[in-house]
Amino acid sequence: MQLVADKQQIDLASYIRAIQDWPRPGILFRDITPLLADSKAFRAAVDALIRDYLGQSIDYVAAIEARGFIFGSAAADRLKVGFVPIRKTGKLPYKTQRITYQLEYGTDSLEVHVDAFNKGARILLIDDLLATGGTMAAACRLVEGLGGKVVGISFLVELTELKGRDRLARYKVTSAIQY
Amino acid sequence: MQLVADKQQIDLASYIRAIQDWPRPGILFRDITPLLADSKAFRAAVDALIRDYLGQSIDYVAAIEARGFIFGSAAADRLKVGFVPIRKTGKLPYKTQRITYQLEYGTDSLEVHVDAFNKGARILLIDDLLATGGTMAAACRLVEGLGGKVVGISFLVELTELKGRDRLARYKVTSAIQY
Repeated sequence: MQLVADKQQIDLASYIRAIQDWPRPGILFRDITPLLADSKAFRAAVDALIRDYLGQSIDYVAAIEARGFIFGSAAADRLKVGFVPIRKTGKLPYKTQRITYQLEYGTDSLEVHVDAFNKGARILLIDDLLATGGTMAAACRLVEGLGGKVVGISFLVELTELKGRDRLARYKVTSAIQY
Repeated sequence: MQLVADKQQIDLASYIRAIQDWPRPGILFRDITPLLADSKAFRAAVDALIRDYLGQSIDYVAAIEARGFIFGSAAADRLKVGFVPIRKTGKLPYKTQRITYQLEYGTDSLEVHVDAFNKGARILLIDDLLATGGTMAAACRLVEGLGGKVVGISFLVELTELKGRDRLARYKVTSAIQY
Protein backbone atom coordinates (compact mmCIF):
# COMPACT_ATOMS: atom_id res chain seq x y z
CA MET A 1 0.00 0.00 0.00
CA GLN A 2 1.41 3.33 -1.07
CA LEU A 3 0.87 6.50 0.91
CA VAL A 4 -1.03 7.85 -2.07
CA ALA A 5 -2.84 4.81 -3.36
CA ASP A 6 -4.19 5.81 -6.74
CA LYS A 7 -2.12 7.53 -9.35
CA GLN A 8 -4.77 7.45 -12.07
CA GLN A 9 -7.22 10.29 -12.13
CA ILE A 10 -10.65 9.60 -10.66
CA ASP A 11 -13.43 12.09 -11.29
CA LEU A 12 -14.35 12.57 -7.63
CA ALA A 13 -17.23 14.93 -8.45
CA SER A 14 -19.00 12.14 -10.32
CA TYR A 15 -19.41 10.32 -6.99
CA ILE A 16 -21.15 13.24 -5.27
CA ARG A 17 -24.95 13.15 -5.40
CA ALA A 18 -27.00 16.36 -5.49
CA ILE A 19 -30.07 16.29 -3.22
CA GLN A 20 -32.65 19.02 -3.81
CA ASP A 21 -34.22 20.87 -0.85
CA TRP A 22 -32.27 19.19 1.90
CA PRO A 23 -32.03 19.86 4.79
CA ARG A 24 -34.30 22.83 3.96
CA PRO A 25 -36.23 23.99 0.88
CA GLY A 26 -33.97 25.89 -1.49
CA ILE A 27 -30.80 24.07 -0.42
CA LEU A 28 -28.97 21.81 -2.89
CA PHE A 29 -27.15 19.33 -0.68
CA ARG A 30 -23.98 17.60 -1.83
CA ASP A 31 -24.23 14.00 -0.63
CA ILE A 32 -20.84 12.32 -0.22
CA THR A 33 -22.14 8.83 0.64
CA PRO A 34 -21.80 7.43 -2.93
CA LEU A 35 -18.15 8.50 -2.85
CA LEU A 36 -17.62 6.81 0.53
CA ALA A 37 -19.22 3.61 -0.74
CA ASP A 38 -16.82 3.33 -3.68
CA SER A 39 -13.49 2.03 -2.40
CA LYS A 40 -11.41 3.62 -5.16
CA ALA A 41 -13.18 6.97 -4.94
CA PHE A 42 -12.94 7.03 -1.15
CA ARG A 43 -9.21 6.34 -1.22
CA ALA A 44 -8.70 8.87 -4.00
CA ALA A 45 -10.55 11.44 -1.88
CA VAL A 46 -8.20 10.80 1.05
CA ASP A 47 -5.28 11.06 -1.40
CA ALA A 48 -6.55 14.44 -2.55
CA LEU A 49 -7.07 15.73 0.99
CA ILE A 50 -3.49 15.01 2.05
CA ARG A 51 -1.65 15.53 -1.24
CA ASP A 52 -0.33 19.00 -0.37
CA TYR A 53 0.87 17.84 3.04
CA LEU A 54 2.89 14.73 2.20
CA GLY A 55 6.39 15.09 3.60
CA GLN A 56 5.44 18.26 5.48
CA SER A 57 5.83 18.62 9.21
CA ILE A 58 2.38 17.85 10.64
CA ASP A 59 1.74 16.71 14.21
CA TYR A 60 -2.02 16.15 14.13
CA VAL A 61 -5.03 16.07 11.89
CA ALA A 62 -8.05 17.68 13.56
CA ALA A 63 -11.61 17.29 12.26
CA ILE A 64 -15.13 18.34 13.20
CA GLU A 65 -17.83 15.76 13.91
CA ALA A 66 -19.42 13.86 12.36
CA ARG A 67 -18.64 13.81 8.61
CA GLY A 68 -15.26 15.43 9.19
CA PHE A 69 -14.26 12.41 11.27
CA ILE A 70 -14.65 10.16 8.21
CA PHE A 71 -11.95 11.92 6.21
CA GLY A 72 -9.90 13.27 9.10
CA SER A 73 -9.18 9.93 10.73
CA ALA A 74 -8.25 8.19 7.46
CA ALA A 75 -5.99 11.16 6.67
CA ALA A 76 -4.33 10.98 10.10
CA ASP A 77 -3.74 7.25 9.62
CA ARG A 78 -2.19 7.86 6.18
CA LEU A 79 0.02 10.72 7.40
CA LYS A 80 1.00 8.70 10.50
CA VAL A 81 -0.01 11.48 12.88
CA GLY A 82 -2.43 11.71 15.79
CA PHE A 83 -6.11 12.58 15.40
CA VAL A 84 -7.87 15.36 17.34
CA PRO A 85 -11.69 15.24 17.41
CA ILE A 86 -13.48 18.60 17.57
CA ARG A 87 -17.00 18.02 18.83
CA LYS A 88 -20.33 19.64 19.56
CA THR A 89 -20.94 20.76 23.15
CA GLY A 90 -21.21 18.06 25.80
CA LYS A 91 -19.72 15.18 23.82
CA LEU A 92 -16.13 15.22 25.10
CA PRO A 93 -15.68 13.72 28.56
CA TYR A 94 -12.58 15.54 29.85
CA LYS A 95 -11.92 19.25 30.46
CA THR A 96 -12.63 21.17 27.28
CA GLN A 97 -12.03 24.51 25.63
CA ARG A 98 -15.23 25.80 24.01
CA ILE A 99 -15.90 28.33 21.28
CA THR A 100 -19.32 29.76 20.46
CA TYR A 101 -19.81 31.23 17.00
CA GLN A 102 -22.47 32.94 14.95
CA LEU A 103 -24.67 31.08 12.47
CA GLU A 104 -27.20 32.53 10.04
CA TYR A 105 -29.84 32.08 12.75
CA GLY A 106 -28.51 31.85 16.31
CA THR A 107 -25.21 30.40 17.50
CA ASP A 108 -23.44 27.07 17.75
CA SER A 109 -20.49 25.78 19.78
CA LEU A 110 -17.50 23.51 19.34
CA GLU A 111 -15.27 21.92 21.96
CA VAL A 112 -11.86 20.31 22.10
CA HIS A 113 -10.06 18.69 25.01
CA VAL A 114 -7.66 21.14 26.66
CA ASP A 115 -4.91 18.49 26.54
CA ALA A 116 -5.59 17.44 22.94
CA PHE A 117 -2.18 18.69 21.80
CA ASN A 118 0.87 20.59 23.06
CA LYS A 119 1.45 24.27 22.45
CA GLY A 120 3.15 24.77 19.11
CA ALA A 121 1.67 21.58 17.61
CA ARG A 122 1.32 21.80 13.83
CA ILE A 123 -2.24 20.91 12.90
CA LEU A 124 -3.93 20.12 9.58
CA LEU A 125 -7.70 20.65 9.69
CA ILE A 126 -9.87 18.49 7.44
CA ASP A 127 -13.58 18.64 6.68
CA ASP A 128 -15.88 17.36 3.98
CA LEU A 129 -17.44 20.66 2.94
CA LEU A 130 -16.52 24.34 2.78
CA ALA A 131 -19.74 26.39 2.67
CA THR A 132 -19.69 29.77 4.48
CA GLY A 133 -16.60 28.74 6.44
CA GLY A 134 -18.07 29.82 9.77
CA THR A 135 -17.69 26.48 11.50
CA MET A 136 -14.14 25.96 10.23
CA ALA A 137 -13.13 29.52 11.21
CA ALA A 138 -14.35 28.73 14.73
CA ALA A 139 -12.44 25.43 14.75
CA CYS A 140 -9.26 27.28 13.76
CA ARG A 141 -9.70 29.85 16.54
CA LEU A 142 -10.30 26.98 18.97
CA VAL A 143 -7.06 25.28 17.91
CA GLU A 144 -5.13 28.54 18.06
CA GLY A 145 -6.59 29.37 21.46
CA LEU A 146 -4.83 26.27 22.81
CA GLY A 147 -1.54 27.28 21.17
CA GLY A 148 -1.83 25.11 18.06
CA LYS A 149 -0.53 26.24 14.67
CA VAL A 150 -2.96 25.76 11.76
CA VAL A 151 -0.72 24.47 8.96
CA GLY A 152 -3.58 24.23 6.49
CA ILE A 153 -7.22 23.40 5.91
CA SER A 154 -8.20 20.73 3.45
CA PHE A 155 -11.78 20.24 2.21
CA LEU A 156 -13.23 17.61 -0.07
CA VAL A 157 -15.93 19.90 -1.51
CA GLU A 158 -15.98 23.70 -1.80
CA LEU A 159 -19.15 25.67 -2.61
CA THR A 160 -17.32 28.63 -4.18
CA GLU A 161 -20.42 30.87 -4.39
CA LEU A 162 -20.57 31.12 -0.60
CA LYS A 163 -17.05 32.58 -0.43
CA GLY A 164 -16.04 30.58 2.63
CA ARG A 165 -12.46 30.86 1.45
CA ASP A 166 -12.53 34.61 2.13
CA ARG A 167 -13.40 33.98 5.76
CA LEU A 168 -10.40 31.63 6.00
CA ALA A 169 -8.04 33.99 4.12
CA ARG A 170 -5.41 33.81 6.89
CA TYR A 171 -4.88 30.10 6.16
CA LYS A 172 -3.75 27.85 3.36
CA VAL A 173 -7.01 26.37 2.04
CA THR A 174 -7.34 23.59 -0.52
CA SER A 175 -10.35 21.70 -1.89
CA ALA A 176 -10.59 18.65 -4.15
CA ILE A 177 -13.97 19.45 -5.77
CA GLN A 178 -15.44 22.90 -6.46
CA TYR A 179 -19.06 23.81 -7.23
CA MET B 1 3.46 1.66 4.45
CA GLN B 2 2.37 -1.84 5.32
CA LEU B 3 -1.27 -2.81 5.64
CA VAL B 4 -0.57 -3.55 9.29
CA ALA B 5 1.82 -0.81 10.24
CA ASP B 6 3.20 -1.80 13.62
CA LYS B 7 4.46 -5.25 14.37
CA GLN B 8 5.69 -4.45 17.86
CA GLN B 9 3.19 -4.77 20.66
CA ILE B 10 1.67 -1.53 21.89
CA ASP B 11 -0.29 -1.58 25.15
CA LEU B 12 -3.43 0.02 23.74
CA ALA B 13 -5.18 0.04 27.13
CA SER B 14 -2.52 2.37 28.51
CA TYR B 15 -3.79 5.06 26.10
CA ILE B 16 -7.39 4.86 27.35
CA ARG B 17 -8.29 7.36 30.07
CA ALA B 18 -10.88 6.55 32.74
CA ILE B 19 -13.28 9.43 33.49
CA GLN B 20 -15.36 9.09 36.65
CA ASP B 21 -19.07 9.96 36.63
CA TRP B 22 -19.40 10.76 32.95
CA PRO B 23 -21.80 11.20 31.26
CA ARG B 24 -23.79 10.42 34.46
CA PRO B 25 -22.90 9.82 38.12
CA GLY B 26 -21.83 6.22 38.65
CA ILE B 27 -20.53 5.72 35.11
CA LEU B 28 -16.81 5.15 34.52
CA PHE B 29 -16.26 6.40 30.98
CA ARG B 30 -13.44 5.05 28.81
CA ASP B 31 -12.00 8.05 26.96
CA ILE B 32 -10.27 7.10 23.71
CA THR B 33 -8.96 10.57 22.84
CA PRO B 34 -5.43 9.99 24.27
CA LEU B 35 -5.18 6.92 22.03
CA LEU B 36 -6.32 8.92 19.00
CA ALA B 37 -3.76 11.64 19.74
CA ASP B 38 -0.84 9.21 19.73
CA SER B 39 0.01 8.35 16.14
CA LYS B 40 1.49 4.94 16.92
CA ALA B 41 -1.34 3.94 19.26
CA PHE B 42 -3.97 5.11 16.78
CA ARG B 43 -2.46 3.10 13.95
CA ALA B 44 -2.01 0.08 16.20
CA ALA B 45 -5.70 0.35 17.14
CA VAL B 46 -6.70 0.31 13.47
CA ASP B 47 -4.35 -2.67 12.99
CA ALA B 48 -6.09 -4.51 15.82
CA LEU B 49 -9.57 -3.74 14.49
CA ILE B 50 -8.88 -5.21 11.05
CA ARG B 51 -6.39 -7.97 11.95
CA ASP B 52 -8.92 -10.81 11.75
CA TYR B 53 -10.24 -9.59 8.40
CA LEU B 54 -7.05 -9.16 6.36
CA GLY B 55 -7.31 -11.17 3.18
CA GLN B 56 -10.97 -11.96 3.82
CA SER B 57 -13.73 -11.10 1.42
CA ILE B 58 -15.18 -7.82 2.71
CA ASP B 59 -17.13 -5.35 0.57
CA TYR B 60 -17.74 -2.55 3.08
CA VAL B 61 -16.92 -1.33 6.53
CA ALA B 62 -19.97 0.18 8.24
CA ALA B 63 -19.79 2.28 11.39
CA ILE B 64 -22.11 4.22 13.68
CA GLU B 65 -21.68 7.95 14.21
CA ALA B 66 -19.76 9.69 15.59
CA ARG B 67 -16.87 7.86 17.31
CA GLY B 68 -17.41 4.78 15.16
CA PHE B 69 -16.63 6.88 12.10
CA ILE B 70 -13.11 7.53 13.42
CA PHE B 71 -12.10 3.88 13.38
CA GLY B 72 -14.46 2.69 10.65
CA SER B 73 -13.24 5.03 7.95
CA ALA B 74 -9.55 4.39 8.65
CA ALA B 75 -10.30 0.65 8.61
CA ALA B 76 -12.14 0.93 5.28
CA ASP B 77 -9.21 2.85 3.81
CA ARG B 78 -6.75 0.18 5.03
CA LEU B 79 -8.89 -2.71 3.77
CA LYS B 80 -9.48 -0.89 0.45
CA VAL B 81 -13.25 -1.22 0.72
CA GLY B 82 -16.11 1.27 0.75
CA PHE B 83 -17.41 2.95 3.90
CA VAL B 84 -21.08 2.97 4.96
CA PRO B 85 -22.10 5.57 7.57
CA ILE B 86 -24.90 4.56 9.94
CA ARG B 87 -26.37 7.72 11.44
CA LYS B 88 -28.87 9.06 13.93
CA THR B 89 -32.29 10.02 12.57
CA GLY B 90 -32.48 12.96 10.16
CA LYS B 91 -28.80 13.16 9.28
CA LEU B 92 -28.72 11.25 5.98
CA PRO B 93 -30.08 13.22 3.01
CA TYR B 94 -31.33 10.45 0.70
CA LYS B 95 -33.99 7.77 1.20
CA THR B 96 -33.20 5.79 4.34
CA GLN B 97 -34.06 2.59 6.14
CA ARG B 98 -34.62 3.25 9.86
CA ILE B 99 -34.54 1.01 12.91
CA THR B 100 -35.84 2.01 16.35
CA TYR B 101 -34.48 0.10 19.33
CA GLN B 102 -34.90 -0.05 23.07
CA LEU B 103 -32.53 1.73 25.43
CA GLU B 104 -32.43 1.53 29.22
CA TYR B 105 -34.79 4.50 29.27
CA GLY B 106 -36.80 5.09 26.10
CA THR B 107 -35.79 4.36 22.51
CA ASP B 108 -33.30 5.51 19.92
CA SER B 109 -33.08 5.17 16.14
CA LEU B 110 -30.46 4.58 13.47
CA GLU B 111 -30.64 5.11 9.73
CA VAL B 112 -28.76 4.00 6.66
CA HIS B 113 -29.28 4.94 3.01
CA VAL B 114 -31.38 2.33 1.20
CA ASP B 115 -28.81 2.25 -1.63
CA ALA B 116 -25.77 2.11 0.67
CA PHE B 117 -24.84 -1.37 -0.58
CA ASN B 118 -26.14 -4.16 -2.81
CA LYS B 119 -27.96 -7.23 -1.50
CA GLY B 120 -25.45 -9.87 -0.48
CA ALA B 121 -22.72 -7.31 0.31
CA ARG B 122 -20.29 -8.59 2.95
CA ILE B 123 -20.03 -6.01 5.71
CA LEU B 124 -17.63 -5.58 8.62
CA LEU B 125 -19.09 -3.43 11.41
CA ILE B 126 -16.69 -1.40 13.53
CA ASP B 127 -17.27 0.65 16.68
CA ASP B 128 -15.16 2.03 19.47
CA LEU B 129 -17.01 0.49 22.42
CA LEU B 130 -19.05 -2.61 23.20
CA ALA B 131 -21.20 -1.92 26.27
CA THR B 132 -24.68 -3.54 26.35
CA GLY B 133 -24.53 -4.16 22.60
CA GLY B 134 -27.99 -2.74 22.00
CA THR B 135 -26.93 -0.13 19.46
CA MET B 136 -24.73 -2.56 17.54
CA ALA B 137 -27.45 -5.23 17.52
CA ALA B 138 -29.77 -2.64 15.95
CA ALA B 139 -27.10 -1.68 13.40
CA CYS B 140 -26.73 -5.36 12.42
CA ARG B 141 -30.49 -5.77 11.97
CA LEU B 142 -30.50 -2.59 9.88
CA VAL B 143 -27.74 -3.97 7.62
CA GLU B 144 -29.45 -7.35 7.35
CA GLY B 145 -32.80 -5.71 6.61
CA LEU B 146 -31.24 -4.31 3.42
CA GLY B 147 -29.83 -7.72 2.49
CA GLY B 148 -26.29 -7.20 3.79
CA LYS B 149 -24.29 -10.04 5.34
CA VAL B 150 -22.59 -9.17 8.67
CA VAL B 151 -19.17 -10.80 8.31
CA GLY B 152 -18.04 -9.67 11.75
CA ILE B 153 -18.11 -6.93 14.38
CA SER B 154 -14.88 -5.41 15.61
CA PHE B 155 -14.67 -3.20 18.71
CA LEU B 156 -11.74 -1.33 20.16
CA VAL B 157 -12.97 -1.61 23.78
CA GLU B 158 -15.26 -4.20 25.36
CA LEU B 159 -16.84 -3.73 28.80
CA THR B 160 -17.17 -7.46 29.55
CA GLU B 161 -19.32 -7.00 32.65
CA LEU B 162 -22.20 -5.70 30.55
CA LYS B 163 -22.31 -8.92 28.51
CA GLY B 164 -22.89 -7.15 25.20
CA ARG B 165 -21.25 -10.10 23.48
CA ASP B 166 -24.20 -12.29 24.49
CA ARG B 167 -26.59 -9.99 22.67
CA LEU B 168 -24.41 -10.30 19.56
CA ALA B 169 -23.99 -14.09 19.88
CA ARG B 170 -25.09 -14.69 16.28
CA TYR B 171 -22.02 -12.85 15.00
CA LYS B 172 -18.26 -13.09 15.10
CA VAL B 173 -17.26 -10.44 17.67
CA THR B 174 -13.71 -9.30 18.44
CA SER B 175 -12.34 -6.58 20.72
CA ALA B 176 -8.83 -5.23 21.17
CA ILE B 177 -9.14 -4.14 24.83
CA GLN B 178 -11.30 -5.73 27.53
CA TYR B 179 -12.34 -4.23 30.88
